[in-house]
Order: sequence, then C-alpha cells, then structure tokens
Amino acid sequence: MRAKELMDKDFVYLNCDDSVVDVSKAMEEVRRFTCPVVNDNKQLVGWVTSFDITKGLREGNEKISEIMSSAEEVSTVHEDDPARKAVILTANNKFVTVPVVNDDNQVIGMVRACDIVELLSDLYDIKVEKLYKAMQNQLHGVTWEELMAASALVSQKTTGQKITAEEYEASIVNSTFGEAIWATGGLEKFFAGLISVGELVVARRVGNARK
Amino acid sequence: MRAKELMDKDFVYLNCDDSVVDVSKAMEEVRRFTCPVVNDNKQLVGWVTSFDITKGLREGNEKISEIMSSAEEVSTVHEDDPARKAVILTANNKFVTVPVVNDDNQVIGMVRACDIVELLSDLYDIKVEKLYKAMQNQLHGVTWEELMAASALVSQKTTGQKITAEEYEASIVNSTFGEAIWATGGLEKFFAGLISVGELVVARRVGNARK
Repeated sequence: MRAKELMDKDFVYLNCDDSVVDVSKAMEEVRRFTCPVVNDNKQLVGWVTSFDITKGLREGNEKISEIMSSAEEVSTVHEDDPARKAVILTANNKFVTVPVVNDDNQVIGMVRACDIVELLSDLYDIKVEKLYKAMQNQLHGVTWEELMAASALVSQKTTGQKITAEEYEASIVNSTFGEAIWATGGLEKFFAGLISVGELVVARRVGNARK
Repeated sequence: MRAKELMDKDFVYLNCDDSVVDVSKAMEEVRRFTCPVVNDNKQLVGWVTSFDITKGLREGNEKISEIMSSAEEVSTVHEDDPARKAVILTANNKFVTVPVVNDDNQVIGMVRACDIVELLSDLYDIKVEKLYKAMQNQLHGVTWEELMAASALVSQKTTGQKITAEEYEASIVNSTFGEAIWATGGLEKFFAGLISVGELVVARRVGNARK
C-alpha cells in the first residue's frame, strides 16, 4: 500500500496571505487541527496548527505568513512511499497529520492518525473463524469438525482448562484476531498455536490413513 | 489489554472557571488539541477542543464554561474496558482523543490516536523471520533449512517466480508482518501460505521417515 492510497484528499490549503481569523473559521468548519500552507503552484511552503492559530489570535497577527512554521520543519511523505512510512512518522512523532507530496512537492493529500487507526484496526477485527476457514481450505480434505476437535485439544494443553470442540467453535465465532493475539500473548504465540493445530490435524489424518 | 494500559496520563485538566486565554496558552505548551473539563472531584463535566478555543478567542469569551461542549456529547471509555473499544471509537468517529474514566466518572487518562497508531503499528513491524522461528519451534525436529526450502517451493507455486531457499531466507530477514500481509493480499492469504509451508514440511518429514 502506497501513501497516496491512505491519504485524505479532503483538506484545507492555506496561502501565506490568508487572514488568521478567516483560517480559524475554516479550520473549525472542516474540523482540521493542521493545514498545509502552499504557494500558487500548490507547493508546500509552510504548516499551521491550531496552536499557531490560537497564539496568532491572541497576539493579533493578521496573516498566515506571520504565524506558520516553515516547510523545512515539516515531515512529508511522497505519494509513492509505502504507507508504512507515514505510519512510522505518526507513531514516532505523535503526529496528527502527515502531508503527502508529489514529485513537484505539491501537496496532494494528508495522512491522518485517525485514518491510520481505521486501517490498522481493520486487521485486528478479522474474525478468528475466518482464519480457521482459511486453514481448512488450505489443509485439503480436513473437515471443520476435525479442525475444531484438534483446536480444543491444543487449547486444553495450553491453558490447562477443559474445552469441547463445540465450546471451542462457539468461542471463535465472535472473537477477533486482535483479541486472540492479546489473549495468547502476541502474534508469534497465536501463530504457534495455530501451527500446532495444523500439525495435530495432519498427524491425525496420517494416523487414520494408516489404519 | 485494558483502556487504562493504553491511556496517556499526561494531559491537561480544565475547570469551568478557567480563562480561555490561559487555557489557550496551556494547550499550546503541552501540545494537546483536546482537553477534558472537570469539577472539583475530577469528574467529567465538559470537553474543549482547539476549535472551541479559536472561536472563543475570536468572540471574546472569557471562561471555559462559555465555550465547552457538555459531558453528554463526549464518548468515554471505562478504565477496565478493552482497549479495543477506544480503538473502535477513534476509528469510527475520527477522534483525536478518547477520555478514560473510572467508576466515579473521574477522568484518569486519555487514549490518543497517535498512541493507538504506535501500539497497532508495533504488530505490523514484527519481522516475518520471527514468525518462521516460531513455526520452527512449534514443528519440533524441523530444521531451518527444511523450512526455507519448503517456503521457497510454496512461494514459487504461488507467484510463478523461481526462488531458491537462500533467496527466500534473505527476503524474510528484513520484511515485516505488515509488508507480508499487504504483499500477499491480506491476513487470511498470508496465513494460508504459512499453513502450506507447514504442511509441506510435515509431509516431507513423513516422507523421509518412511524411506
């Protein structure tokens, strides 16, 4: 995924000559705490946050050029950069927004922290049941019942608590990948548990074939 | 993970009688776009954003009580709620911050979008190699070389491109879980690919044992 696929195109451009009062109203209206300042060619020349606006209003500044940070102080990503670059910038610097520029340094969008949260949390919300369905498809010829029986056994071995195949199935219908990795203690452990299940199913199938 | 484990405790409390000008300076200093308004018992009674502040400064409001939203309009999470609840609120409503309250409705922290990005992105940054190491540990007796050879075969089958075990190993050393799921087209597909590898390794081992 590229930065341009993650960016929000609905943002407010500012010009150096815009009035601080007008900009404050525009930012309230579109509910954006940060805005890029651009020149006539839409190239990034500065950056304004709500903090600059409140200070500017208090101190009676009139124009955006009087209150903006310079473009050199702003971290940007290129439209073709991996989306992950914007994610890392946001995480490491506690940014609310990262501007996205093209080859000509024109601002073409903004990657917002809340959009990143939405994107990343989608992964966490994938139902565990879907992962088991993918596992079943992959392990050709294994039935859902065999898979649940093996899972209940592995779960019992790991947690020490008795659980039937039916109870196990009920537990994964509504649980999510996020809950599962938090419950098992991390991605590697969750993943190792699933591999155990796959291994047990294959071993049982081999065992049955030999009978 | 609970909301209280994810929340930021470093935030600014406001009182109804605080001056808008003073609050604007405090918010600039700590760089927070949103603040809870509390009573003497630290219970949530309102909410202020930088948008309320800019409007208040423009219109000459003096006290926070004149510009704040009421507590009823604010979405909160309880300290013992799953962290996921704050993540979903943030993703669905494009929130910058979600206040965390205790049983007495006292504000004890704030979950910030940027902190969620940091938490969620950590998962994406887990190296694929670590997942393979977990798989190797799980599949007792399988060597790293067998695992890489099987992976190269599965990769070749999936992508149609020739790749040696050594090339495969080099490719996973620096790649992350996030890159891998984006590259394979989603968690289920990534996971199915890994199950394939496990299956092939087990099948080869069974085959070798029979020789």
